[in-house]
Amino acid sequence: MRAQVLSLAMLCGAAGEAQAQAAARPSGPVQQKIAPGLARYTDEVLFGAVWPSPDLSPRDRSLVVISVLIATNKPAQLTGHLGRALTNGVTPVEASGVLTHLAFYAGWPNAVSALEVYDQVYSARTVDFASLQAQGQAPPAVAGRFRGSAEASLETVAPKFARLSRDVVLGDLWRRSDLTLRDRNLVTIAALAAMGEADQLEPYLRGGLDAGLTRAEITEALTHLAFYAGWPRATAALTVVDQVLGKPAEAKP
Amino acid sequence: MRAQVLSLAMLCGAAGEAQAQAAARPSGPVQQKIAPGLARYTDEVLFGAVWPSPDLSPRDRSLVVISVLIATNKPAQLTGHLGRALTNGVTPVEASGVLTHLAFYAGWPNAVSALEVYDQVYSARTVDFASLQAQGQAPPAVAGRFRGSAEASLETVAPKFARLSRDVVLGDLWRRSDLTLRDRNLVTIAALAAMGEADQLEPYLRGGLDAGLTRAEITEALTHLAFYAGWPRATAALTVVDQVLGKPAEAKP
Amino acid sequence: MRAQVLSLAMLCGAAGEAQAQAAARPSGPVQQKIAPGLARYTDEVLFGAVWPSPDLSPRDRSLVVISVLIATNKPAQLTGHLGRALTNGVTPVEASGVLTHLAFYAGWPNAVSALEVYDQVYSARTVDFASLQAQGQAPPAVAGRFRGSAEASLETVAPKFARLSRDVVLGDLWRRSDLTLRDRNLVTIAALAAMGEADQLEPYLRGGLDAGLTRAEITEALTHLAFYAGWPRATAALTVVDQVLGKPAEAKP
Repeated sequence: MRAQVLSLAMLCGAAGEAQAQAAARPSGPVQQKIAPGLARYTDEVLFGAVWPSPDLSPRDRSLVVISVLIATNKPAQLTGHLGRALTNGVTPVEASGVLTHLAFYAGWPNAVSALEVYDQVYSARTVDFASLQAQGQAPPAVAGRFRGSAEASLETVAPKFARLSRDVVLGDLWRRSDLTLRDRNLVTIAALAAMGEADQLEPYLRGGLDAGLTRAEITEALTHLAFYAGWPRATAALTVVDQVLGKPAEAKP
Repeated sequence: MRAQVLSLAMLCGAAGEAQAQAAARPSGPVQQKIAPGLARYTDEVLFGAVWPSPDLSPRDRSLVVISVLIATNKPAQLTGHLGRALTNGVTPVEASGVLTHLAFYAGWPNAVSALEVYDQVYSARTVDFASLQAQGQAPPAVAGRFRGSAEASLETVAPKFARLSRDVVLGDLWRRSDLTLRDRNLVTIAALAAMGEADQLEPYLRGGLDAGLTRAEITEALTHLAFYAGWPRATAALTVVDQVLGKPAEAKP
Repeated sequence: MRAQVLSLAMLCGAAGEAQAQAAARPSGPVQQKIAPGLARYTDEVLFGAVWPSPDLSPRDRSLVVISVLIATNKPAQLTGHLGRALTNGVTPVEASGVLTHLAFYAGWPNAVSALEVYDQVYSARTVDFASLQAQGQAPPAVAGRFRGSAEASLETVAPKFARLSRDVVLGDLWRRSDLTLRDRNLVTIAALAAMGEADQLEPYLRGGLDAGLTRAEITEALTHLAFYAGWPRATAALTVVDQVLGKPAEAKP
């Protein structure tokens, strides 16, 4: 067992074990009592190696995690992770922007389920609610992206849906200033991957790169997401990344 | 901001703004405080333009929404929407029929999760529980549809599953009188779309048309569903509608 | 109605009706009051014919059901079914092994949601928590299976994800002694099917057969799963079984 623990920590290429011993174990006593194997993975892999990795900022990791939790309707886990997100540098304006964004991408009920959690976490942290009301300058429209999109191809069969997609989603939601275009693509990628809609990732992968996300950030975000949405969702999403974005630039001759 | 609000209401082609100002805002104070952008979409788009649109009856919209909420396990949101459905003309017999139907299509646990909500809403509205016990004349069997279905193709590999599909699902559930064939197809379409099973929509799209659903009702139902199950689910389902049903008849030369 | 009831019980090829009359009805009074049609299917089909069928052991049925409930985040229903699983012969070590396994396959939040239920059920049954801490001899590695897997094909685009898949998931999780390889494949098949990830079933279908699952057990498990994850998920999974494993051996000339 000892050898196995060391090996696992080493495999994760991390200060996993030391970190797990130094701090209180993130897994908590119930997990350690009921499922010690899970607790070991929680402490050594997820919090020992994945979260601390410099391959993606803690802020971006949090953005991915709260997107997954909202998109998959996990209000119970959102309480802790929304607090962590604010600690990691996601601003309340951004966190609320994620909620608004995901109402469209994951449906109103998921956003509404998260509202009460937001209220509790914001209140506990004495977030300035008035600051959430401001809505600054809108970024340039991305409506041009509508052409050639899946939604645009539905203009004949479902003209109202196409119009809402063009005018409300792309023409209004995507122009809001509460999230940068980079972050909005990252949040959308995380939500689609978590929902099992990898087939629809392509425009957001391309849009994300255009808006400043790097290929490495996208793959690390989806690797992180594997722990929160399950291995199969990450596998499906990364397979699309592979198809759409091809091999990493540095691997090319 | 002002210009943007007007523009959004105009884009939705609705008395959205007037309606939002006249009535109490549907979004509610928590949503307005935490995510004012979301509240604006709720008031001006979802309740200002989508729900009031004459392209689908409020009753059918409610049928779609309760189907989505049951199929995606959202008992918290079901409380309000089941009450709204009864107000919009869905009868208790029909609402209970949706529950029975979706036990098969979305699994027993989702139906069981909804049971307590049904009990509360029915009790608060003093629904006559005895009336739910009657089971009238069965409609003609749709078992003929079994031939050529995905389930029929599994007869060799999974004979019991094929037999249950033919005898219990198609031969018994689909013959129940608590839902019309039209509504049963609509409910199934909504559940499959919400679950991300667009690939299996075809027989219910065709069956729905045969049973009196119109192409326009189907596309409007899926447009409405976008707000409750998320844009990607509606996009996937409408793409299948496009493939299966082709272009709207009026668009043909 | 009487004829229909008899017919339904007969269709299920079961002592369904007798069983339903002899015992208290499994459906319970609320289901009978709100959705009598559902209650009839619960009593006569699900508990009258499916659960009692000798085509799969009660223990394996329970293993499938708790996997589905964890993978689809249904802690409310897990309470009863985890108790039933222990009664049916799933050991606490195995049940905890399912939880650890599904943290990877369905995501940490689903496992964490289930933890509290586990704690309650184990405590009520005075499970020996100390026995859960032991971790015996590891079974042979299945890391060889990594070659040719979907995860392996991601080595270039997402090297860290591929490494975690190889070293932590296949090299450590799959070598744990808390679940046999047979059961681990069965649990994974159930989780993937319930999550709508039928496309990723192939290696676990083949691995399950290699580890002692029979073709008949797999199809019966997925038939049972239809009632807990919905007909469309079972249809999609059985379609893959058909493609991957071909026709049952006894159907071949």
